[in-house]
Amino acid sequence: MLKFSERAINMQSSPIRKLAPLAAAAKKKGKKVYHLNIGQPDIHTPKEFFDAVSNLDMGVLSYVDSQGIPEAINSFRKYYTNWDIHFEEDEVYVTNGGSEALLFAILAVCDYGDDILMPEPFYTNYNSFTSIAGVNIVSFPTKAEAGFHLPVKDIITKSITKKTRAILLSNPGNPTGVVYTKEELYLVAEIAKEYDLFIIADEVYREFVYDGLKYTSFMHLPEIKDRVILIDSISKRYSACGARIGLMATKNRELLPLFLKLCQSRLCASALDQIGAAALINTPKEYFAEVLEEYQARRDVVYNALSNMKGVICQKPTGAFYVVAKLPVENAEDYVKFLLTDFDVDNETVMLAPAEGFYSTEGLGKDEVRISYCLNCEDLKKAMNVIEKGLEAFNK
Amino acid sequence: MLKFSERAINMQSSPIRKLAPLAAAAKKKGKKVYHLNIGQPDIHTPKEFFDAVSNLDMGVLSYVDSQGIPEAINSFRKYYTNWDIHFEEDEVYVTNGGSEALLFAILAVCDYGDDILMPEPFYTNYNSFTSIAGVNIVSFPTKAEAGFHLPVKDIITKSITKKTRAILLSNPGNPTGVVYTKEELYLVAEIAKEYDLFIIADEVYREFVYDGLKYTSFMHLPEIKDRVILIDSISKRYSACGARIGLMATKNRELLPLFLKLCQSRLCASALDQIGAAALINTPKEYFAEVLEEYQARRDVVYNALSNMKGVICQKPTGAFYVVAKLPVENAEDYVKFLLTDFDVDNETVMLAPAEGFYSTEGLGKDEVRISYCLNCEDLKKAMNVIEKGLEAFNK
Repeated sequence: MLKFSERAINMQSSPIRKLAPLAAAAKKKGKKVYHLNIGQPDIHTPKEFFDAVSNLDMGVLSYVDSQGIPEAINSFRKYYTNWDIHFEEDEVYVTNGGSEALLFAILAVCDYGDDILMPEPFYTNYNSFTSIAGVNIVSFPTKAEAGFHLPVKDIITKSITKKTRAILLSNPGNPTGVVYTKEELYLVAEIAKEYDLFIIADEVYREFVYDGLKYTSFMHLPEIKDRVILIDSISKRYSACGARIGLMATKNRELLPLFLKLCQSRLCASALDQIGAAALINTPKEYFAEVLEEYQARRDVVYNALSNMKGVICQKPTGAFYVVAKLPVENAEDYVKFLLTDFDVDNETVMLAPAEGFYSTEGLGKDEVRISYCLNCEDLKKAMNVIEKGLEAFNK
Repeated sequence: MLKFSERAINMQSSPIRKLAPLAAAAKKKGKKVYHLNIGQPDIHTPKEFFDAVSNLDMGVLSYVDSQGIPEAINSFRKYYTNWDIHFEEDEVYVTNGGSEALLFAILAVCDYGDDILMPEPFYTNYNSFTSIAGVNIVSFPTKAEAGFHLPVKDIITKSITKKTRAILLSNPGNPTGVVYTKEELYLVAEIAKEYDLFIIADEVYREFVYDGLKYTSFMHLPEIKDRVILIDSISKRYSACGARIGLMATKNRELLPLFLKLCQSRLCASALDQIGAAALINTPKEYFAEVLEEYQARRDVVYNALSNMKGVICQKPTGAFYVVAKLPVENAEDYVKFLLTDFDVDNETVMLAPAEGFYSTEGLGKDEVRISYCLNCEDLKKAMNVIEKGLEAFNK
């Protein structure tokens, strides 16, 4: 008998996409479905990207540097200086999306059987990358009641083993919308130094921080500069998810040859997408201001609606475009299915992502959902109304 | 102390690229360097690709289907019907180049510690994908004297263990230029059935078969249709290496959900590159005919020159655009370095790829080089003259 790999068989099915057939069935019945399940921004991609890849007279679309084209690398470096983050040219590696950067970062610092520490809930595809790498996730809990901020030191360090090589966090957080305070970053830095861990800092939502909060990057802490692997992507920042351009960057010079070998193994990232990505540095400043204002308004619609729903627990998120809400139900996945199969308001319903798939500890997150607010405020209001009325109907 | 992973530390440095600093130094001294080390075609990419991605009015460059956009999938299916290969729509998965397809195929059928069988020499990045997956390469030898055709059954099966899950071959062969006969394919099929192996068939050079030979794909053998994972790419076929578009396809329906999960883990392949790739189906037939004629002429230049060099062993390759030649030297890497640092003809020299890195068995290939003939015939003639004169000088 032919054998398939256990690692592929046991890989998690995307909790964001697995209920898609139910949404398709609802649409077939003529229902409108508001997709609050996926983080696909509806904001337009800056035209600088499309202009750069139009009417190219390249002749041969050749391989480009495994590390990335210099134009893209330097464009990213310039972007970072605006954030007071400074990289040399050989410290930035362009990847096939943030996804590949995460996989490569894990591969560079973890061997098979090693551990990686993360707060849960976490971005669900961290499960996939660790499955591929044969690395175990050890997690510590963060809670809806505390807005998913970090717990005290003891709770974080309790799960660390001799085989723990790194701590992986997204900040601003997917799926939680948390933005860590400077104090929280210092706590993580202290733990990383004490236990000799790398910090894999997934900062792809850096531009999405609300209420005038000041964002602190792990790159801003000089005492851990050799421990940080920065993960980034143009996907959310410029609403360019379909361009698979991300990056990993580090000040740890010993990591650079390892990154280069990993990048050489797949030859290069897309030449065209890199050309487009390089041009994004010319995006007008107003683009970010407008986008930020829009998302903050959406966040307000979602949060205000949630905080008025009976039995729903949720602190105001201050970043990214997600929120995890604890619902007054036993099984949130059943409720999500119910919305798609048995419920509508004026023939409209909502698709949410059950949050259980964002946890690694069995049983956690069962009563939670992740809400992505990538729709305009009007649609969001209707969607939140569906969620509220749906909860009443579901709990009857 | 911070630990780096053994797997990354032990990953092979690209034998194709590692001597690049010496080539750069030669160029700095004003020497012209003919690059016979890399498989970067100089043939123009069909304009259909660039036209398709020009002046796109997409608004939002969104994520696309993890499996691939339907236009690309159907374009590939149509291409295959010209080769009498037939896939359903859910049997083709678009990947970030052939590289990702190879990695995903290995991950889907091999667990950590499993074996994968390959003839050596093999495409050097197979080393990288197995390193990432934690899979061991077990190999059997093929020889320059036999044109790198397969040995007898016993020699192939000798290395198979209980942990061997698949046999991975490129056909036409990189780095050898071998095109396997139908009989050789039947032999592999027989072994795969006997030992319950998958066949990972890397057929990215399918269009490059010379001398009017008829090409047989593993997909043409119905008795193993559930064992074959076809790996493909537009990189060589359409000279579009910088577009990272490859695919994996299989008739084994149990593999499909595993492929989908692997694809979902990195969300999608580049949207723009897929749009360009889909349009390549409209490339005029003459494109292939012209390219084939050109490469066959190049092959002739290279092979004729090699067969006239004293002490060089090399059978006429019939596919791809590579040849592995055994040289009358003890250490081919020293000779390659010598060409770059200490030799020229009229201020021109050549960069070759030492073949040792294409073998997994220690010591094999030490006296061999891989020659890539991606230059025009005039340049190739000059380059072959450098190689011949260089051998005489090196052996003095």
